[in-house]
Amino acid sequence: MIQTKLAIIGVGHVGSQVLTDCSHLNLFSEIVLIDSKEDTAKGEALDHRHALAASYRTNSKIYAGDFADCADADVIIISAGVSEKPRPGEDMPPRALMGKENAVEIRKIMAGITAYTHEAIIILITNPVDTITYIAENEFDYPKGRIFGTGTTLDTFRYRQIIASHYGVDPKAVSGYIMGEHGSTAFAAFSSTTVGALTLSQCDALLDRAEPVDREFISQEVVHTASDVFNWKGWTNSGIGEVAAVLARAVMLDEKSIFPVTATVDGFYNCHGEAAFSMPCIIGRNGLERQIPLPLDEEEYEKLQLSIKDIQHTLQSVR
Amino acid sequence: MIQTKLAIIGVGHVGSQVLTDCSHLNLFSEIVLIDSKEDTAKGEALDHRHALAASYRTNSKIYAGDFADCADADVIIISAGVSEKPRPGEDMPPRALMGKENAVEIRKIMAGITAYTHEAIIILITNPVDTITYIAENEFDYPKGRIFGTGTTLDTFRYRQIIASHYGVDPKAVSGYIMGEHGSTAFAAFSSTTVGALTLSQCDALLDRAEPVDREFISQEVVHTASDVFNWKGWTNSGIGEVAAVLARAVMLDEKSIFPVTATVDGFYNCHGEAAFSMPCIIGRNGLERQIPLPLDEEEYEKLQLSIKDIQHTLQSVR
Amino acid sequence: MIQTKLAIIGVGHVGSQVLTDCSHLNLFSEIVLIDSKEDTAKGEALDHRHALAASYRTNSKIYAGDFADCADADVIIISAGVSEKPRPGEDMPPRALMGKENAVEIRKIMAGITAYTHEAIIILITNPVDTITYIAENEFDYPKGRIFGTGTTLDTFRYRQIIASHYGVDPKAVSGYIMGEHGSTAFAAFSSTTVGALTLSQCDALLDRAEPVDREFISQEVVHTASDVFNWKGWTNSGIGEVAAVLARAVMLDEKSIFPVTATVDGFYNCHGEAAFSMPCIIGRNGLERQIPLPLDEEEYEKLQLSIKDIQHTLQSVR
Amino acid sequence: MIQTKLAIIGVGHVGSQVLTDCSHLNLFSEIVLIDSKEDTAKGEALDHRHALAASYRTNSKIYAGDFADCADADVIIISAGVSEKPRPGEDMPPRALMGKENAVEIRKIMAGITAYTHEAIIILITNPVDTITYIAENEFDYPKGRIFGTGTTLDTFRYRQIIASHYGVDPKAVSGYIMGEHGSTAFAAFSSTTVGALTLSQCDALLDRAEPVDREFISQEVVHTASDVFNWKGWTNSGIGEVAAVLARAVMLDEKSIFPVTATVDGFYNCHGEAAFSMPCIIGRNGLERQIPLPLDEEEYEKLQLSIKDIQHTLQSVR
Repeated sequence: MIQTKLAIIGVGHVGSQVLTDCSHLNLFSEIVLIDSKEDTAKGEALDHRHALAASYRTNSKIYAGDFADCADADVIIISAGVSEKPRPGEDMPPRALMGKENAVEIRKIMAGITAYTHEAIIILITNPVDTITYIAENEFDYPKGRIFGTGTTLDTFRYRQIIASHYGVDPKAVSGYIMGEHGSTAFAAFSSTTVGALTLSQCDALLDRAEPVDREFISQEVVHTASDVFNWKGWTNSGIGEVAAVLARAVMLDEKSIFPVTATVDGFYNCHGEAAFSMPCIIGRNGLERQIPLPLDEEEYEKLQLSIKDIQHTLQSVR
Repeated sequence: MIQTKLAIIGVGHVGSQVLTDCSHLNLFSEIVLIDSKEDTAKGEALDHRHALAASYRTNSKIYAGDFADCADADVIIISAGVSEKPRPGEDMPPRALMGKENAVEIRKIMAGITAYTHEAIIILITNPVDTITYIAENEFDYPKGRIFGTGTTLDTFRYRQIIASHYGVDPKAVSGYIMGEHGSTAFAAFSSTTVGALTLSQCDALLDRAEPVDREFISQEVVHTASDVFNWKGWTNSGIGEVAAVLARAVMLDEKSIFPVTATVDGFYNCHGEAAFSMPCIIGRNGLERQIPLPLDEEEYEKLQLSIKDIQHTLQSVR
Repeated sequence: MIQTKLAIIGVGHVGSQVLTDCSHLNLFSEIVLIDSKEDTAKGEALDHRHALAASYRTNSKIYAGDFADCADADVIIISAGVSEKPRPGEDMPPRALMGKENAVEIRKIMAGITAYTHEAIIILITNPVDTITYIAENEFDYPKGRIFGTGTTLDTFRYRQIIASHYGVDPKAVSGYIMGEHGSTAFAAFSSTTVGALTLSQCDALLDRAEPVDREFISQEVVHTASDVFNWKGWTNSGIGEVAAVLARAVMLDEKSIFPVTATVDGFYNCHGEAAFSMPCIIGRNGLERQIPLPLDEEEYEKLQLSIKDIQHTLQSVR
Repeated sequence: MIQTKLAIIGVGHVGSQVLTDCSHLNLFSEIVLIDSKEDTAKGEALDHRHALAASYRTNSKIYAGDFADCADADVIIISAGVSEKPRPGEDMPPRALMGKENAVEIRKIMAGITAYTHEAIIILITNPVDTITYIAENEFDYPKGRIFGTGTTLDTFRYRQIIASHYGVDPKAVSGYIMGEHGSTAFAAFSSTTVGALTLSQCDALLDRAEPVDREFISQEVVHTASDVFNWKGWTNSGIGEVAAVLARAVMLDEKSIFPVTATVDGFYNCHGEAAFSMPCIIGRNGLERQIPLPLDEEEYEKLQLSIKDIQHTLQSVR
């Protein structure tokens, strides 16, 4: 009866962090870990269960399982797949290669899941997330809205942190989104960004920083900060773990929160079902409950069109 | 050495709730309760300490004390004073009377505190909070910024909840402020309010609600919802308890969060030190670190001038 | 589908605190408040919703409702009923009177609930809780285990806090229970109490306190501390609010936690279904899943027999 | 003035997890990361800061720094050093080799720290933690108690989880310690272990499990579960991250919690300053405030003597 169950598919660096952050939510009575490397799943489950003996933690069940364990899951987070790595000497660029490999992987996983459930809300992290989401959403008859990708939510967190640092305020005071591809063509919707209800121009005038915010620099910084983490640390997982956790919470508690997640867009921004990309969406008990076509200025609109083209290009390559 | 200490002065319905919410922060190693009714303070301390035996809670020290215990406090929250109550048969209107009584009270309390510290960050809740803050801030040589009132932060929470409900979204997605007096002349800065980065007009156009938001209705609703709580429940304390907790946390963790708190305004909105009222402010380790003069449209500006006049009028009556 | 729903019946001082503590769990997507004074329920719901606009809080739905809203509740907490108050000039002693009034009340409430559900886990707080639990459990055919009272869990928290203070340690390091009646005949199971795995005698020998623990004094202190809170503050609600929250969490997350809750005992300690009293119990998804007959020494056993007699006596008076 | 600062030295798999768990405490306004691989520290800081843009998180400062940043730290957690790995073809056994390398490393780190502070509470994780703690504690004149190692706290968490699983209860209901070396000679103090205040023999009699608990098996299981995590996952970090977080919290909030941490023992269990090992200790604002000589039965006492010998042997090898 009462049960709140999370499944995490793929427990590498990202999945392990998703598990940590979701277990800190104190929201799930069961968390099942599924990984083609069964030992990894068993090791993660065991290690995390040791942590739950602390007095402040809740006694959730964490265990390694398989797709059959998805049957009664409320939320499934997919963080499986190969991840970006420099691959010197290879002909194809890494991103495209990753796309191909992960497209194969996601098809296997979706086949596995859909053998047992079409009810769970599925949150995709696997990269290239827009392409992967498009495949998962459109090839398996999964109910619309019940499946979406983390998209530019992480990029948006990064953007808010960068803007917040520039003006010396809490990122929770920043409202504004990164949209489009979760990747190099992502762009900031500067025109609708506010800090404590001030527009960016008002911030420059009123918050006494030496320098006005350089939009071009900020745009690049959002993309570069990801590479910095990746190159300095070897992978990125802390930010994305938190993203998965806030999305899972918004679903479980039916929060109607707004996050820029990715899903197929049909009827907005001149896109008619031919790509999945990120725009602000309402997230609740039914997953992605509504896409919100945030108005863009001309420059932003053009950037979005470029981003859509780029996503479609990657999509072609994995068909 | 390491110590994080909160003092709560006045533990009636509001102070007791402040204690609950601040104790859930798991942030203070010591909380001292000070009340002219010593038994009430002792009873609250004891009752809350029982709660801390639960395995999820931190073993903070909670005890009844006196002003000497403020000497090493990091944060002091003042929720003392008479509260609003219908007083049939009395000549003066309740608000003004309350102002007089509480002005006397706050002077006693500030004298008590300043005998021991000028270091602690003081957060005032006592009503009429703008007037009380003005007195406390200006009559005791307390360092600028280290003292401020909760102001319209609660009204802002109410406003965001009302707007959020109207559009069916999470209030955390609403950015926008109630400004001016914490009282009947408070007003919403509609022109800079956004929901998921959409302006209110864009929300009306894009979020498919049957009715566009009625600004006049919303304005009244923010004021009326307070009366509703008051009349239905007999007092208001749950909302304000959380407000005090988020402000205390912003101070302790130096978050640089933006909240519309009240303090004397000198140089903004044509006010030159003759009133305290709420505008967005950056809250950090040094308390109120910066007031942000959010641009207002003409109608909002006029409402603010009326609000300032009203606050000054109350202020006159307690001098 | 996914939904986690709490109903709180009775939102006086206790119910309001239960609401605060349960809302801090971030575990329920819906909380419905039911009170014969509908305005109180509406006022509490509104006040608490204002708190949820804070960025750290989850956007749960909190609203006033009626018994029909219990239909899909996961957990129901009952804090309704008259509470203890000195009643000078009355013939009957307050406790018995309270028992009579609250027995009438609980029968109304159980009739209301069982018209809509026999699935929810019901947690009773209403005093005298052993008697009230016995009535609710046995007169309405409610599934065994799905209903129980908070019993001596609060007394146990108080006991652990007192023992912990005596030895200068965290109450989370104290293991041990108060058993029997939630009332004046409650007794400490000293013989099985440990502090950091030390027995009390070992504590006295090893922890260098000036005085060994005086068991008689501690026993009285556990009872007196409740009166102290009650007399000093006018009611007790902070401790019991946390108790309700930890029990609700143990149920929702199927924690299999051990708490001394009250329910009819049949087959342990020479009691054969003729009373409800507190002993350590495993609390999980199915409510009270198992009573654990903690071995008692002779003195403790005798105290328990006296406590059972006392409970039966109160029970007779309300039949 | 008000500031709560954590330094983490060494941000590999363990340090990164310590950072995650400590950042979830919402307790530190500043966290500085120090690693000889500066890029790793910078990457971790950046990745975690992205996570803090989420609405539920506190805006702490997380940044890469150096030993000078320890000057005003409240707590320093050291997770630096080489970690266990199979090293086929090498002459010396891995543990001893690790001891030698890490002894060199810890001396460098302690020299770095003590150039700036003797005030911070230092928590050591680096293995072999008993040996490393002995060196750090005794060679740098660091104030007694202000430095200690996590010791068998993690082993104790594992033990409680294993016992809890066996009896089908919440590990928070288990009281009992693993003592001695954090390593293969660690042993369970079965004689003083309780589950819901029942001794293990009482559990076997009363909790209806098919099999009584096999103490030999449990002992081995506590050691083996660590190897299982290590071999299956490639490292262990989730459990130890939580251990570090609960210890840091106990210090910051002066909780007087009891954990089996490691420090030099002088005067208990026939040890006179010649080894550091784990026994239950009170942890508060001053670090390790008191060692508690939990009485052992004969078998346990002998195991402890063997464990001490083993620790001394490792210690000899790194002098």
